[in-house]
Amino acid sequence: TKTYKIAAIPGDGIGKEVLPEGLRVLEAVSRRFGIQLEFTHIDWASCDYYQKTGQMMPDDWRAQLQPMDAIYFGAVGWPASVPDHVSLWGSLLKFRREFDQYINLRPVRLFEGVPCPLAGRQPGDIDYLVVRENTEGEYTNLGGVMYGGTDREIVIQESVYSRFGADRVLKYAFELAQQRDRRHLTVATKSNGIAIAMPWWDSRADAVGQAYPSVTVDKQHIDILTARFVLQPGRFDVVVASNLFGDILSDLGPATTGTIGLAPSANLNPERSFPSLFEPVHGSAPDIYGRNIANPVAMIWSGAMMLQFLGHEDAHDAILQAIERTLIEGPRTPDLGGTASTTDMGRAIAERI
Amino acid sequence: TKTYKIAAIPGDGIGKEVLPEGLRVLEAVSRRFGIQLEFTHIDWASCDYYQKTGQMMPDDWRAQLQPMDAIYFGAVGWPASVPDHVSLWGSLLKFRREFDQYINLRPVRLFEGVPCPLAGRQPGDIDYLVVRENTEGEYTNLGGVMYGGTDREIVIQESVYSRFGADRVLKYAFELAQQRDRRHLTVATKSNGIAIAMPWWDSRADAVGQAYPSVTVDKQHIDILTARFVLQPGRFDVVVASNLFGDILSDLGPATTGTIGLAPSANLNPERSFPSLFEPVHGSAPDIYGRNIANPVAMIWSGAMMLQFLGHEDAHDAILQAIERTLIEGPRTPDLGGTASTTDMGRAIAERI
Ligand SMILES: CC(C)[C@H](C(=O)O)[C@@H](O)C(=O)O
Ligand SMILES: CC(C)[C@H](C(=O)O)[C@@H](O)C(=O)O
Repeated sequence: TKTYKIAAIPGDGIGKEVLPEGLRVLEAVSRRFGIQLEFTHIDWASCDYYQKTGQMMPDDWRAQLQPMDAIYFGAVGWPASVPDHVSLWGSLLKFRREFDQYINLRPVRLFEGVPCPLAGRQPGDIDYLVVRENTEGEYTNLGGVMYGGTDREIVIQESVYSRFGADRVLKYAFELAQQRDRRHLTVATKSNGIAIAMPWWDSRADAVGQAYPSVTVDKQHIDILTARFVLQPGRFDVVVASNLFGDILSDLGPATTGTIGLAPSANLNPERSFPSLFEPVHGSAPDIYGRNIANPVAMIWSGAMMLQFLGHEDAHDAILQAIERTLIEGPRTPDLGGTASTTDMGRAIAERI
Repeated sequence: TKTYKIAAIPGDGIGKEVLPEGLRVLEAVSRRFGIQLEFTHIDWASCDYYQKTGQMMPDDWRAQLQPMDAIYFGAVGWPASVPDHVSLWGSLLKFRREFDQYINLRPVRLFEGVPCPLAGRQPGDIDYLVVRENTEGEYTNLGGVMYGGTDREIVIQESVYSRFGADRVLKYAFELAQQRDRRHLTVATKSNGIAIAMPWWDSRADAVGQAYPSVTVDKQHIDILTARFVLQPGRFDVVVASNLFGDILSDLGPATTGTIGLAPSANLNPERSFPSLFEPVHGSAPDIYGRNIANPVAMIWSGAMMLQFLGHEDAHDAILQAIERTLIEGPRTPDLGGTASTTDMGRAIAERI
């Protein structure tokens, strides 16, 4: 049987607290299903490393990671020591781009046992997937400042889209939607305000959609779309969005299911030319770091997505069932109204594999 | 006493249904308080006009509107006849820019009698103001397409910010926050992803904030900020945001208070060099137009904001009280769970002035 090489990168803050729980569950599930996982533990892609070396990653980071089958990533960013845009552009966003992880897949689901912040919603009422473009669009460091430091200062920020980049994420989303029962795809846009890129994005959705006549397409402007995540969550099945809009929707969606401490994500290079990366949606959370109270579910669920991507659907399902049971029976971390520690909750999930 | 000249522009769709109710209430309140309002009814800035003339507005629109003290505006956009970006850039967005209405003020408040989509929230728990930059930033038609129509197609969209533009909206927001009990200002950002404009925006917030030491400033990335609108709405007092982020937050915020049918807005040129514009946050809503079921409160409340801006605080308060009473006692439109028509609800509010 194949041995999968996994880079385990805790990063910063609660990344260091939740990653061990993710590993604990991966070990349990790999024992049960006889999956061979070989972990390489990496202390870079962290602000600690930056403070020691003046850079976020060693020069040979690509060479070290390229042989990996996947990267299992905690969280990065520690504002007190390194500005966010330095730490993130020097690690996570670099992985997404240079390893061409152009799909950022983020499931949103209301679980039994988790108090829903939306009144009257039951498990089953919220269950959709956000497909976020992950390599281009609004996230750039292109542009610049003119008349800097004066009252006439002008700043230009460029968003860059390509047909290649838009079409492949739209295609992925249409394929996904086509495989699901409801075959419904929401396309996030803002063509009424962002007058060049977004009408173009809409037209690419139309063009790509031609090949998927069975999928119902609903284009929605990002403003009203966020409103509907709150007012009509049952309306959504698959939601495809540009980099920025997907970022917003994939924090808002999980918030409507109780806590972003549950939300996992998969940064995929579907062609497997580069390792894909699996990480919680949440960040390093300096405000709660050091107390061992972070919810480990997002990290653990991200591990399940990793095994699914590697072809082990059964292992994925076993982890999801253990998570489901633990959310109902406890123990639960404080964000879920409980008093358990990160470790308690991680152990409980591992034991239930 | 002064006679205020008001341009009344219904626009499209439900704009035509709610504007008459707004006018009804303005007439009632102006009778009660002896305010002289002189209305000019305008049928352009609508897609109907576009279909007749091939343009959204007559060539002399500026000359016609410049003498006005305010513009009372319904909604614009009718996708079936004119692409959104044509209708909007040809009217509403033109007003905002050419009349330099650089503040878009959007109150968010949970009312008694309105079922809240967030579990367990009471009136008083949600009460904040979104201050949106309204003339620059992400909303531009600058940029273009390269290799158009080929597989190599690349699209660039430019966002443009100025120190002048950012500082004045930040200053306005700091002033507002300083006058309120809590003196708390949330600054929406995304400096970790949008690597040029947003770190710069943060630095302008720091610079402008120096003059307001009594205001507590909390910078939040737009992704987690939308999550917190749902999870911790009580955290917010004044929220200042760029054009796009303000657009999103000012639909999402009202959604958390039950319906965007309540949300008003004021597009202000605080220096009064140009007329300011008052309009509901909602759009022309083709899906419900023609049934006389649109909620007129956003339009009516926008009228209250107009009178407040013109200096009639007492008239503003009287309208708000009539709205409050009607939300508790009915009649209510379907979006609020009632069965009343737009007209019923408008009449009830007018009678309670
Ligand atoms: C940390 C940040 C750059 C990142 C993003 O905006 O993509 C995060 O919010 C996410 O969603 O993964
Ligand atoms: C119609 C549209 C261009 C407009 C905007 O995005 O500004 C609307 O959503 C609003 O919020 O006033």
